[in-house]
Amino acid sequence: MFTRTLEPAFYDTDALGHINNTRLPAWFELARNDLFRLFTPDLDPRKWALIMARLDVEFLAELFYGEDIEIRTWISRLGNSSFTVTQEAWQNGRPGARGNTVLVHYDHEAKRAAPLPANVRQALEAHLVDTAEAGA
Amino acid sequence: MFTRTLEPAFYDTDALGHINNTRLPAWFELARNDLFRLFTPDLDPRKWALIMARLDVEFLAELFYGEDIEIRTWISRLGNSSFTVTQEAWQNGRPGARGNTVLVHYDHEAKRAAPLPANVRQALEAHLVDTAEAGA
Amino acid sequence: MFTRTLEPAFYDTDALGHINNTRLPAWFELARNDLFRLFTPDLDPRKWALIMARLDVEFLAELFYGEDIEIRTWISRLGNSSFTVTQEAWQNGRPGARGNTVLVHYDHEAKRAAPLPANVRQALEAHLVDTAEAGA
Amino acid sequence: MFTRTLEPAFYDTDALGHINNTRLPAWFELARNDLFRLFTPDLDPRKWALIMARLDVEFLAELFYGEDIEIRTWISRLGNSSFTVTQEAWQNGRPGARGNTVLVHYDHEAKRAAPLPANVRQALEAHLVDTAEAGA
Repeated sequence: MFTRTLEPAFYDTDALGHINNTRLPAWFELARNDLFRLFTPDLDPRKWALIMARLDVEFLAELFYGEDIEIRTWISRLGNSSFTVTQEAWQNGRPGARGNTVLVHYDHEAKRAAPLPANVRQALEAHLVDTAEAGA
Repeated sequence: MFTRTLEPAFYDTDALGHINNTRLPAWFELARNDLFRLFTPDLDPRKWALIMARLDVEFLAELFYGEDIEIRTWISRLGNSSFTVTQEAWQNGRPGARGNTVLVHYDHEAKRAAPLPANVRQALEAHLVDTAEAGA
Repeated sequence: MFTRTLEPAFYDTDALGHINNTRLPAWFELARNDLFRLFTPDLDPRKWALIMARLDVEFLAELFYGEDIEIRTWISRLGNSSFTVTQEAWQNGRPGARGNTVLVHYDHEAKRAAPLPANVRQALEAHLVDTAEAGA
Repeated sequence: MFTRTLEPAFYDTDALGHINNTRLPAWFELARNDLFRLFTPDLDPRKWALIMARLDVEFLAELFYGEDIEIRTWISRLGNSSFTVTQEAWQNGRPGARGNTVLVHYDHEAKRAAPLPANVRQALEAHLVDTAEAGA
């Protein structure tokens, strides 16, 4: 599991006084940098090998400006060419949002999904967690 | 069904040369203004009566800068206090993304879900569409 | 002068209940699409010929969610290879923000500024306005 | 001077392959959290005492995804009720952008500017830097 701490910005809030829902997919994308490095160690977009198939976010509690957010990121499913990333945003000891992203290893030249390379698969396996357990 | 046209901004793109995935939840929120007006006709945030329970987005095809986007918005489920909004982003005659948002009618003072008011329910029913049919 | 109307989204607001300041540079970039088309008619980013040298925004009055914004865009200075775009965001008949952007016609291969092409210069001249007059 | 490191997200990029200009005002706002705490130690938006009068950003060099950004923040002017924050975004040992923000200490009830409180003024003075020197 990867964890990182981020600090909300004022622009992350909305007129209801809390973090706007559209910021969660953005925060989760930022936190996936740790996973992206397994595919593209220097993060050069010209060597990008992933596309996004879907995302979902479940909102569990309000998140606020003024307190750090911990993003927890792990692999919850590892397929042949695609995998699912599960992420949570915690604040003050409780989860405020949980999301899943399905990413596909993609050959941009051939324009089709490609099997996960063996070394990347091995690296991803180290972050494979049973989600029910992780969320406990 | 509500439809509206929006024009991508340069900042909606990312280094892969297409629209970044995090913009879809934002575009869909903008398009929900039409639904928000059914609850709060003047859109005054101090009278807000909705919270978001979850969102998902399925990415069907790349979307690009330089061509208009049509956002289609309808109600696909109408519960007692919550409902599901289904939305699609079309460009050049094909859908690039489809998403669902679960919204809950919420009493911010009592801090709990509240039944949909009868007049709002009636207005929402006019936009209730069988999603399988809409996406056909 | 170019004018276009945009509708604020809920995510454009912040916890002070008004439009967040960081959204103005974004709205102004969206409205510059009209100018970008003079350089790159199909807006294909691979043919892009402009870079940004600076931007400023002066905040004149609060802007709010729930009412349309009119963006006014004109050229206030036309140099050899660079020019200044002045833009205003109006709501309910008064200006809420005014900004300037300095754009440079740029040769991405040679990595240096390039004189404005004659046909583009002519098109820009049609939108050249004395700013003091425009803001009156 | 305050310094903090931030990591670009993929959504910070645009189709030109670098960081989009609209992200700089956002990054600078995030880094002003350090200053905001001098006014509102718990960052509670309901106790907010600042409004923004203007911002500018000068773009000095491209910034890229994949390498950390260091944001440097200091006070370059300290007036009676307003002050100017100067900020720079550095990457790989060179400045990519420099910006100024004019903030006004504001009495939201009386709806007018208010003198800086003595203790805040003292705290701000500790971060007052001659900008020509800082940029050397």
